[in-house]
Amino acid sequence: MMRVVHKYGGTSMGSLERIRATAKIIKKDLLLGRKVAVVVSAMSGETNRLLGLAKEIDASPPCRELDALVSTGEQVSAALLAIELHHLGIKSYSYNGYQAGFRTDSSHARARIIDVQSDHLIAHIEVGEVPVVTGFQGSDKAGNITTLGRGGSDTSAVALAVAIKADVCNIYTDVDGIYTTDPRIVAQASKIDQISYEEMLEFASLGAKVLQTRSVEMAMRFNMPIHLRSSFEDVQGTMVTGEDTAMERAEITGVAYHRDEAKVTIQGIPDQPGIASRVLGPVADADINVDVIVQNVSEQDYTDITFTVPRDDYNATMKLLNTLCTELKAKKVKGDDTVAKVSIIGVGMRSHAGVARKMFDVLSKENINIQMITTSEIKVTVVVDEKYVELAVRALHTAFDLDAVS
Amino acid sequence: MMRVVHKYGGTSMGSLERIRATAKIIKKDLLLGRKVAVVVSAMSGETNRLLGLAKEIDASPPCRELDALVSTGEQVSAALLAIELHHLGIKSYSYNGYQAGFRTDSSHARARIIDVQSDHLIAHIEVGEVPVVTGFQGSDKAGNITTLGRGGSDTSAVALAVAIKADVCNIYTDVDGIYTTDPRIVAQASKIDQISYEEMLEFASLGAKVLQTRSVEMAMRFNMPIHLRSSFEDVQGTMVTGEDTAMERAEITGVAYHRDEAKVTIQGIPDQPGIASRVLGPVADADINVDVIVQNVSEQDYTDITFTVPRDDYNATMKLLNTLCTELKAKKVKGDDTVAKVSIIGVGMRSHAGVARKMFDVLSKENINIQMITTSEIKVTVVVDEKYVELAVRALHTAFDLDAVS
Repeated sequence: MMRVVHKYGGTSMGSLERIRATAKIIKKDLLLGRKVAVVVSAMSGETNRLLGLAKEIDASPPCRELDALVSTGEQVSAALLAIELHHLGIKSYSYNGYQAGFRTDSSHARARIIDVQSDHLIAHIEVGEVPVVTGFQGSDKAGNITTLGRGGSDTSAVALAVAIKADVCNIYTDVDGIYTTDPRIVAQASKIDQISYEEMLEFASLGAKVLQTRSVEMAMRFNMPIHLRSSFEDVQGTMVTGEDTAMERAEITGVAYHRDEAKVTIQGIPDQPGIASRVLGPVADADINVDVIVQNVSEQDYTDITFTVPRDDYNATMKLLNTLCTELKAKKVKGDDTVAKVSIIGVGMRSHAGVARKMFDVLSKENINIQMITTSEIKVTVVVDEKYVELAVRALHTAFDLDAVS
Repeated sequence: MMRVVHKYGGTSMGSLERIRATAKIIKKDLLLGRKVAVVVSAMSGETNRLLGLAKEIDASPPCRELDALVSTGEQVSAALLAIELHHLGIKSYSYNGYQAGFRTDSSHARARIIDVQSDHLIAHIEVGEVPVVTGFQGSDKAGNITTLGRGGSDTSAVALAVAIKADVCNIYTDVDGIYTTDPRIVAQASKIDQISYEEMLEFASLGAKVLQTRSVEMAMRFNMPIHLRSSFEDVQGTMVTGEDTAMERAEITGVAYHRDEAKVTIQGIPDQPGIASRVLGPVADADINVDVIVQNVSEQDYTDITFTVPRDDYNATMKLLNTLCTELKAKKVKGDDTVAKVSIIGVGMRSHAGVARKMFDVLSKENINIQMITTSEIKVTVVVDEKYVELAVRALHTAFDLDAVS
């Protein structure tokens, strides 16, 4: 009999009415004979409410206490869902991270799962009872409560699915799957029925916030299929798997974009070994997330380094680079905080030559200037002026034959 | 160095402002060189809010889930207080019931503490750090979250004080101690500086709701002094101890009363052994709390049984007795739901003869008819018409020399 983990986010747990709807989805699966374990997030808004209380007391409260505080959010929603299931005649028990056997390291607020000891839940699942486990949390060796960081519930769900040897991990959310691109920009965007872990990782890292990157990495490592689907309507969503069952793949699977990027350049640095790390080290130390990096030799013995950072970190980065500029005897620092990334993604491009070139051609025909390029085996990303985002996405979506037949 | 447990109720944790005031009280004690561990209740209203959510889903939700749900209330307030203490420069760590080592039986919603394994907290206390422990909760052998029932935080505090070998358990509340009687009835009522466990138990059972009965029983068993005091002003409260340090005791310590009582009588029951249990058994089975019981022989071979019940249970009790009346071939059932209990309490009465008689005299002089009488070694209780409560309390308070010199 099929064993499945259901994961419900804050929206699905946002009100008693939503919890009722969630319980009905679970009941439906049980009636189909499936064995179900559930992972839940806190009711939407609750984590922020609790953090707000803490921040009102102290701008930087101790992480251990923040974890103890916010972890209550999931405990409340797990208990409420268990009560609702009980109300529908289903035996159900809530478990917090500790009780469910989620052992983590001690990095409060961003703990990593070491081990999930959930064998005691299997006996319940097998007789049709439903354990409801709090997502996002665990406890360390000393018994301190830890949390996995924002969005950690997806990771909890996959970890539980692996631990109880589920056949699939259903992630219920407010969208019904991954689309070939943002339907707000391209009306002909269509739902992707199946996507590989690698592609999903690329989509996720580009701000398709439907799945936490860590959860996909974990699913890939343990080959756990994820079914990303809607909690509002019972339709097939997007299956994220390792198997590529399609007979033939399209050149690319989708077009993604990310606004709110900024680009900075430090020019004319006297070139010497290790210069990249002398520039990027201090940036990383300041907890600024560097993304696309390009290093060129500008003139003899001088080099330029350009990289993108989140727009919110633009000012801090510029300040840092100006200091570095003096230290490293570089010539100049330049910046632009109105850029965006546009990417084409697809495992298909491995076997299709010239995908990158086709992308550049398409953009060139639209007179979109490409400022930076970075490629991976299954992705090509360009940095362009933000004002071209919609145009670029639409042109690429059409050129790569992704427009749905309407 | 003095080791002390502080317990703060829902009012003391009711807002961030109150939590700030609470943290200041703790800091003051630390500055005096005391070693402090803290037990807290949920923010006032929170437990009811959570129960409300559960009841909205199901009128009788599973107890295990209710415990998981409401126990989050204390976890939130404990974490917030730890953050506030940290903000004042004090190292502090919150512990939920499980983490603090509170092992209970599995009776959800009314669990009994089996054992408190809090040795790991002592090291923190000894170096001036402050563990903040959630009151009202623990976990059973299987790791399920349990709660001790309403007011259980007092019991948690005493249990922790015993476990860490504290010198005293300070219970901070919104009153500054136990009074000789209700100051709303007798303006000359005065605060009792010291009271014995036995007296406190009698006061508590009469509705002086400042301390949970179980906590006093536990303090008595382990001879743990309780200092009942105000969280609003730093004044001496009432010490509840086993030692009677006063050279001479007054005849009585205080006058207590309890309204909202009802009296029922089943008359003319054919007398036979075991008849009392045949009457009271079904009442107990219906979870109705029987208090004062009097049995008389009315005529040859017939007996009357009269007892009091909480007024809320009056109708249910009458219905039950009418059925029993037929079954037992008794003659009649009578009831009165406007009675009240008035008691005088004091260990002093052990050595003062005639205290009961003096009480009856006082009431008789005021033309108050005594309907029932029950006595213990340190208490005499009479049941009277509710309309006489104030008069009786005032007359007794004066007659037994309790009026404060103004």
